[in-house]
Amino acid sequence: MRQHNHSLTIETDCRGLHEFTREVTGWVVQTGVSEGLLTLFVRHTSASLLVQENAAPAARRDLERFFGQIAPEDDGYEHDDEGPDDMPAHIRSALTATSLSIPVFDAQPVLGAWQGIYLFEHRRSAHRRQIALHLIGA
Amino acid sequence: MRQHNHSLTIETDCRGLHEFTREVTGWVVQTGVSEGLLTLFVRHTSASLLVQENAAPAARRDLERFFGQIAPEDDGYEHDDEGPDDMPAHIRSALTATSLSIPVFDAQPVLGAWQGIYLFEHRRSAHRRQIALHLIGA
Amino acid sequence: MRQHNHSLTIETDCRGLHEFTREVTGWVVQTGVSEGLLTLFVRHTSASLLVQENAAPAARRDLERFFGQIAPEDDGYEHDDEGPDDMPAHIRSALTATSLSIPVFDAQPVLGAWQGIYLFEHRRSAHRRQIALHLIGA
Repeated sequence: MRQHNHSLTIETDCRGLHEFTREVTGWVVQTGVSEGLLTLFVRHTSASLLVQENAAPAARRDLERFFGQIAPEDDGYEHDDEGPDDMPAHIRSALTATSLSIPVFDAQPVLGAWQGIYLFEHRRSAHRRQIALHLIGA
Repeated sequence: MRQHNHSLTIETDCRGLHEFTREVTGWVVQTGVSEGLLTLFVRHTSASLLVQENAAPAARRDLERFFGQIAPEDDGYEHDDEGPDDMPAHIRSALTATSLSIPVFDAQPVLGAWQGIYLFEHRRSAHRRQIALHLIGA
Repeated sequence: MRQHNHSLTIETDCRGLHEFTREVTGWVVQTGVSEGLLTLFVRHTSASLLVQENAAPAARRDLERFFGQIAPEDDGYEHDDEGPDDMPAHIRSALTATSLSIPVFDAQPVLGAWQGIYLFEHRRSAHRRQIALHLIGA
């Protein structure tokens, strides 16, 4: 049994879903691990992780609209140190995932046919987001 | 330290929570692992995982009603390739868990007394859902 | 590769976010593991886990308000065995995390600068909450 650590940086330019499945699967292959457990952890409280539909861009736009409606910018928040999209970003993060755990088999994360791995950016402006990766296996 | 991989198929007939705690704990016992880490990963974007109240069916009906209200079918979605329950299913998946990690102790997942493991089906019609399981331990 | 199991008890006195980052990092240091994978699992269905903003108390108050609004107490629930805050607690748990997975590097969970680990209490009254911890690594 061996373990590997890695860090990915995703540059986002706007709110919404940014796919990085290929970066993840590429790293898993590089480690040489064929069976194991992959963990992803986002090191921010205004961006999160999501496994979602990888085929239909319309589904990703609907998701963004849903989260925009459920946590709107003008909702009388007490906390707005970084602007009107600050508090909605924390709420959206709380409602989605900070960490993801995915078994690895045959040197690949066992994603379903329609599953992609996304960084969900919750701030309006460009950000550099860090995701810690860990893989344990053989 | 050893690891084990497994796959469970859950057949659902309608929207809502389908318990499969027994299938999970049964597999853990079979592996012979007494201490370790169990991971569950659902390979779909229109079904998810939930640890919830295992005693009161009324709580599960209230949960289904809540998610039906927060992501209703007739909400002007752009994405409806598979019908009116398509996009609500993706939203409900985004709001709940794709993966679960549960420590194992004394050959059992350390679930609380009132916790059950559920597949949360978000589509109206019958589906076969695959859940990947991974266990590492000794 | 070694593994460690532990249990933390958090005493809560009201609804809202209770930080326990220090208890977690203290235990990780004690184990002597410098690189590995940390898992937290809450053994309840009316309390959950959240990684959130550790600097601004106003952000935590806004989060509590958001969840109070999205799952209000007087919403015609069928399940109210333990009072009006019973069903909202299950809904809030379903919307947030039951388990968290955090890579460990340099003997520390790889939390971002502004990330704290919180128990999210969803019941009004005082409770003793148990969190199972697992660490595998070297």
